Amino acid sequence: MKFTIAVLPGDGIGPEITQQSVKVLKAIAERFEHEFKFEEALVGAAAMDLFETPLPDSTLKICKNSDAVLFGAIGDPKYDNDPSAKVRPEQGLLKLRKELGLFANIRPVKAYDKLINKSPLKAENIQGANMVIFRELTGGIYFGEKSTSEDGKSASDLCTYSVEEIERIAHLAFQAAQKRSKKLTLVDKANVLETSRLWRKTVTSLAKKYEDVTLDFLFIDNAAMQMILNPKQFDVILTENMFGDILSDEASVIGGSIGLLESASIGNKYSMFEPIHGSYPQAKGKGIANPVASILSAAMMLDHFGLTEEAKLVRNAVEISIQLNVCTKDINNDNHYSTEKVGDFLESVISDID
Amino acid sequence: MKFTIAVLPGDGIGPEITQQSVKVLKAIAERFEHEFKFEEALVGAAAMDLFETPLPDSTLKICKNSDAVLFGAIGDPKYDNDPSAKVRPEQGLLKLRKELGLFANIRPVKAYDKLINKSPLKAENIQGANMVIFRELTGGIYFGEKSTSEDGKSASDLCTYSVEEIERIAHLAFQAAQKRSKKLTLVDKANVLETSRLWRKTVTSLAKKYEDVTLDFLFIDNAAMQMILNPKQFDVILTENMFGDILSDEASVIGGSIGLLESASIGNKYSMFEPIHGSYPQAKGKGIANPVASILSAAMMLDHFGLTEEAKLVRNAVEISIQLNVCTKDINNDNHYSTEKVGDFLESVISDID
Ligand SMILES: [Mg+2]
Ligand SMILES: [Mg+2]
Repeated sequence: MKFTIAVLPGDGIGPEITQQSVKVLKAIAERFEHEFKFEEALVGAAAMDLFETPLPDSTLKICKNSDAVLFGAIGDPKYDNDPSAKVRPEQGLLKLRKELGLFANIRPVKAYDKLINKSPLKAENIQGANMVIFRELTGGIYFGEKSTSEDGKSASDLCTYSVEEIERIAHLAFQAAQKRSKKLTLVDKANVLETSRLWRKTVTSLAKKYEDVTLDFLFIDNAAMQMILNPKQFDVILTENMFGDILSDEASVIGGSIGLLESASIGNKYSMFEPIHGSYPQAKGKGIANPVASILSAAMMLDHFGLTEEAKLVRNAVEISIQLNVCTKDINNDNHYSTEKVGDFLESVISDID
Repeated sequence: MKFTIAVLPGDGIGPEITQQSVKVLKAIAERFEHEFKFEEALVGAAAMDLFETPLPDSTLKICKNSDAVLFGAIGDPKYDNDPSAKVRPEQGLLKLRKELGLFANIRPVKAYDKLINKSPLKAENIQGANMVIFRELTGGIYFGEKSTSEDGKSASDLCTYSVEEIERIAHLAFQAAQKRSKKLTLVDKANVLETSRLWRKTVTSLAKKYEDVTLDFLFIDNAAMQMILNPKQFDVILTENMFGDILSDEASVIGGSIGLLESASIGNKYSMFEPIHGSYPQAKGKGIANPVASILSAAMMLDHFGLTEEAKLVRNAVEISIQLNVCTKDINNDNHYSTEKVGDFLESVISDID
């Protein structure tokens, strides 16, 4: 089959990890006789340096003309800590999500048996933990109206949600729950926030269409605690944009490294695949960044293309690399492999395994 | 000395834990020849049952006529899960904070050596962890304008902050940092939110007055992860209302039980002391609730009264009870003591110790 993939490496370690995913995808294409066309484009600080905007029109166009976007990471310290800056690299990502209508961010979290001791959590608490977080991605306070008073003495951010925004992602979450252990947890703050009450009302009424799924509720502050106390209680979590941002980054501690966590961002028309970790500028160019999160994101892309067998092979290759300790420094401190070597190993497993 | 203390037991386990704190305070009064006058009043669901409001005027009046408020917990399941309810028990607490001008919520978090194995986190990661979270308590999205569209199809919550709101709590946090290890971490989401940028700008400019304190910054999603990965990096954390709610509940896992964590809420005129745990309705009346969080909150009240030696004695008594395993079920599963027995033990230590 033929697919065009927009490749947006972005900033920091973005380019070096994305390169490994492209390597892996090329090995898949070769083995299964697909034709993947890669179209590279700038985003984030990398784009700002050249175009003064973190999302140039040319990049957006490439994304819209592709079957999927493979995204690296965004953010550069030279644009941080300047509260007066008008444009920020992160805006490129927010705008991209909005422009592509990527309303659902899907983040699987699991504890790898082999890495169970790498987690700051006790093994017995996380062994077998396996969940998927559905984070709403284009609404809520991150996208609401922002303002600063003329005298600069006060500021505001507006959080809004509509029934439609809630329903479209809730459907996806319910459907995912049906394919898993049929349990959906809505995380909100319905005892305080009006938008959370709309979430609770909308999701509760939608639940009637998914009678085989058990729906329960958790306030975000309690969820942040439960995620550590007993992560095994979760199967599918559904939540709004900011709560999902906080909760999924927190949940990353379960896997033992944020460098292992993939994500998919899905809309009605477009889709994007990216690691949940950031641009980690301190590690840039050092060859220590873990490419697995990006590579597993590429596996989600293959699934999205309907290439299930191919996706499975990528995941198997990752499992093998972890079993054999062919891992970067974050999970293999003693005898670690470089970013590139991990990519090479996965490429060769994919090419050669029976 | 003479003090009038408003006692608001509230809902769920609120009454039974608060009773132990009163017991302890009476023992302190007796031993140090103080005169504590306790004025009890209804709040939360308990007040709604009788007055149809979670914060009756009579309760507010008692609070305003007291030197401090000792607060239990609020919330009852019979008022939960009803997104259409107009009045909620939690509103009583929000209104009380607002009416008393309690803008700073102060939450110490520490790992007790004796309980280090009770935490879901690995001992080596938390041993020695000791921080204080300063959470802004009367601003932000919890208090902002809320609205639902007429057709019920959309809702919004407004998050606002002013320089003044930020400065008054920031001063307290900087002063606390000066007395501790001189490190202050501001948690925000300044890469996305306008209010967060106002926080960062305001706190950065205030830092010039506290040159001995090192100020750093963390985004809330990263902070939620760092709290688990490496809690020892934190000393004083300063953050806005909702981020503080999430982060401090999450941080409670460090101590091994949420039943150990005290808090103080401070304003220019009034002050209130409460455990960070909720009303835990499932445990109501079973004698299993841990009274220590409430009792340590009472110790913070004593400190606030300037009764440092008295506060120290309460904390020592708690340390002794933990050493001797005179603890409720949450931290002593094998041979646990009831809520009342723990209170009795602490009372007797306070009365009898040399
Ligand atoms: Mg994040
Ligand atoms: Mg809370």
